[in-house]
Amino acid sequence: MVRQTLIKPDGRELILYARDRIVVTSPVPSPASDPFSPNAHLRWHPLRGEWIAYATRRQHRTYLPPPEFNPLAPGDDPSHPTELPVGQYDAAVFENLFPALTLHAHDAPHVLVPTRDGLGRCEVVVFTQDSHASLGALPLWHIELILEIFSDRYRTLGAYPQIQYVYPFENRGVEVGVTLSHPHGQIYGYPFVPPIPAAELEQQRAHLQEHGRGLMEDLVDRELLAARRVLYEGTDAVAFVPVAARYPYEVWIATRRACPSVADLDERSRADFARALKTVLLKYDGLWNRPLPYVMAWHQAPTDGQPHPEAHLHVELYPPYRMRDRLKFLAGSELGAGVFTADTDPDATAAELRAVAVQIE
Amino acid sequence: MVRQTLIKPDGRELILYARDRIVVTSPVPSPASDPFSPNAHLRWHPLRGEWIAYATRRQHRTYLPPPEFNPLAPGDDPSHPTELPVGQYDAAVFENLFPALTLHAHDAPHVLVPTRDGLGRCEVVVFTQDSHASLGALPLWHIELILEIFSDRYRTLGAYPQIQYVYPFENRGVEVGVTLSHPHGQIYGYPFVPPIPAAELEQQRAHLQEHGRGLMEDLVDRELLAARRVLYEGTDAVAFVPVAARYPYEVWIATRRACPSVADLDERSRADFARALKTVLLKYDGLWNRPLPYVMAWHQAPTDGQPHPEAHLHVELYPPYRMRDRLKFLAGSELGAGVFTADTDPDATAAELRAVAVQIE
Repeated sequence: MVRQTLIKPDGRELILYARDRIVVTSPVPSPASDPFSPNAHLRWHPLRGEWIAYATRRQHRTYLPPPEFNPLAPGDDPSHPTELPVGQYDAAVFENLFPALTLHAHDAPHVLVPTRDGLGRCEVVVFTQDSHASLGALPLWHIELILEIFSDRYRTLGAYPQIQYVYPFENRGVEVGVTLSHPHGQIYGYPFVPPIPAAELEQQRAHLQEHGRGLMEDLVDRELLAARRVLYEGTDAVAFVPVAARYPYEVWIATRRACPSVADLDERSRADFARALKTVLLKYDGLWNRPLPYVMAWHQAPTDGQPHPEAHLHVELYPPYRMRDRLKFLAGSELGAGVFTADTDPDATAAELRAVAVQIE
Repeated sequence: MVRQTLIKPDGRELILYARDRIVVTSPVPSPASDPFSPNAHLRWHPLRGEWIAYATRRQHRTYLPPPEFNPLAPGDDPSHPTELPVGQYDAAVFENLFPALTLHAHDAPHVLVPTRDGLGRCEVVVFTQDSHASLGALPLWHIELILEIFSDRYRTLGAYPQIQYVYPFENRGVEVGVTLSHPHGQIYGYPFVPPIPAAELEQQRAHLQEHGRGLMEDLVDRELLAARRVLYEGTDAVAFVPVAARYPYEVWIATRRACPSVADLDERSRADFARALKTVLLKYDGLWNRPLPYVMAWHQAPTDGQPHPEAHLHVELYPPYRMRDRLKFLAGSELGAGVFTADTDPDATAAELRAVAVQIE
């Protein structure tokens, strides 16, 4: 992997990545003409006991792209500047123009509840220059490159003392609110360990203490033994519909043995993890012969300076559909009580996904 | 309030409620012809450390209503039986035909994670016979009656030793997955204190121990003092956009002084609570001159046999819109990390709602 860091005219970082070689043949553009000076703060939700991220409204938002305009495509038209320059490279990362968290955060307001600066970083990861591709459709080497990028960002963002958790994710599809169809993910660097990974790490810690073995290792072993919900079984990585799936077509991808973070994958396990991911994403799109929307969440070890022997890298995928033409809505029970209600049997949805044949290479 | 309990032909309970008088003039119908024999089980989510409710698929689902057919309307057509008989009554409660939890639950399956019977109860609350009404549009006496019904159900369901938490809620609008537009809410009786109320009770308990005062009482006092986010200030109840709102138009309604549950409201405070609720719902519909969708969650004291001096009845309303034509999607940060990101300032959305004039009586 090669990498080149550039600075956009508005001051934001742009990092280009390629397997072999980077050549930039146009000026580095930005859709924004004003200098980048974001702000954000956190408010303490006193009832739930968690931080809510407030993005300060940008007073001088001078640019709104026309709907047919793709800001994630490479471009060299100064009258419609995109986020990426023209050139030879495979993927790119840049700071989100409208970040929910920023290392520039300052002067958190005084309100009725505790507040703090919304320190952190929100990055966009453009997976490819091809607007019509998708993460799952990329060749294996390219998906491996994306994992190397996640690894690079994990190390880079995790090194900031302000950032305690590095969280790569992808929102895919209008059903989960995505307006840009160009294949891209995001990385949030949070100034705390977020509630969901924190809850998972707590369960993993307790299990490790009690059993001397990793919780996810045990789950993986049991799922492999049960076999019927397994979608991919590789040398180093596995993918399965978990026995207690919350979403009907939920899938987890994990290393067989505990690996704290994406940056701890060696070359072989990264290649196998990429193959597992590609397998699942191709099965998703093959299920109903159309792109399946999903939220893809990467859970790994915090970068909070503490030891995390309990951490075990895994990906959780949440497609919002419960059948071909029906969304699974989160409503009263899920949003107000926190109890997921499932209508479908993970064995059955796993069988559907297992039946989707995929060809890799 | 008067009440009459009937049994549907399939065995489910139907409870009719009225302010003055109940007269039933047609047989009690059911859209289902088979005897009601639901099942459900819970699976332990080992990573999150929470129970997921699995509704056993009903093998013999013999009835599917045509889309134009309203099963929540009173009816006496034996060829299209609805859930409610024809007659004189103001509201009705019946067991959900497809419950996520049921007191009949039995034989939880053995899988890779701990399971238990999905004991509990899922009820539908039909707010009125009028299909074109809405909760907020009902006259005050009728909303008070709904609160009396919630109170009756709290006592009745809470008395089951299997049920530890009684949770009234309303999902309103296709945006939160509602397919029946007839005004109705639901009540879930859970066999445990659900994660979100549990987290809130924990914060409330800690605050009470530390300060000798209720957390919600303190929040209410501070919001009233700040004043600018307050939507209703009555003798006994208040409504406001909370300073740490997660949804742009989120509103909380609470009693001024700690009241453990809806069943503990006296007549005066119930009337004031109903007025607060009506005020908020009318402001919601007046905001953009169309019915605003929302999830309405009632949080109160568990019925687990423990003392709950920390509990303070309150309603949380989550409308899914962030502006007139844009939904607030829950995606990567909210669903995978548990961190809400807010683009809007609660002061500003409160000002919008405050500016909506409502006329009551």
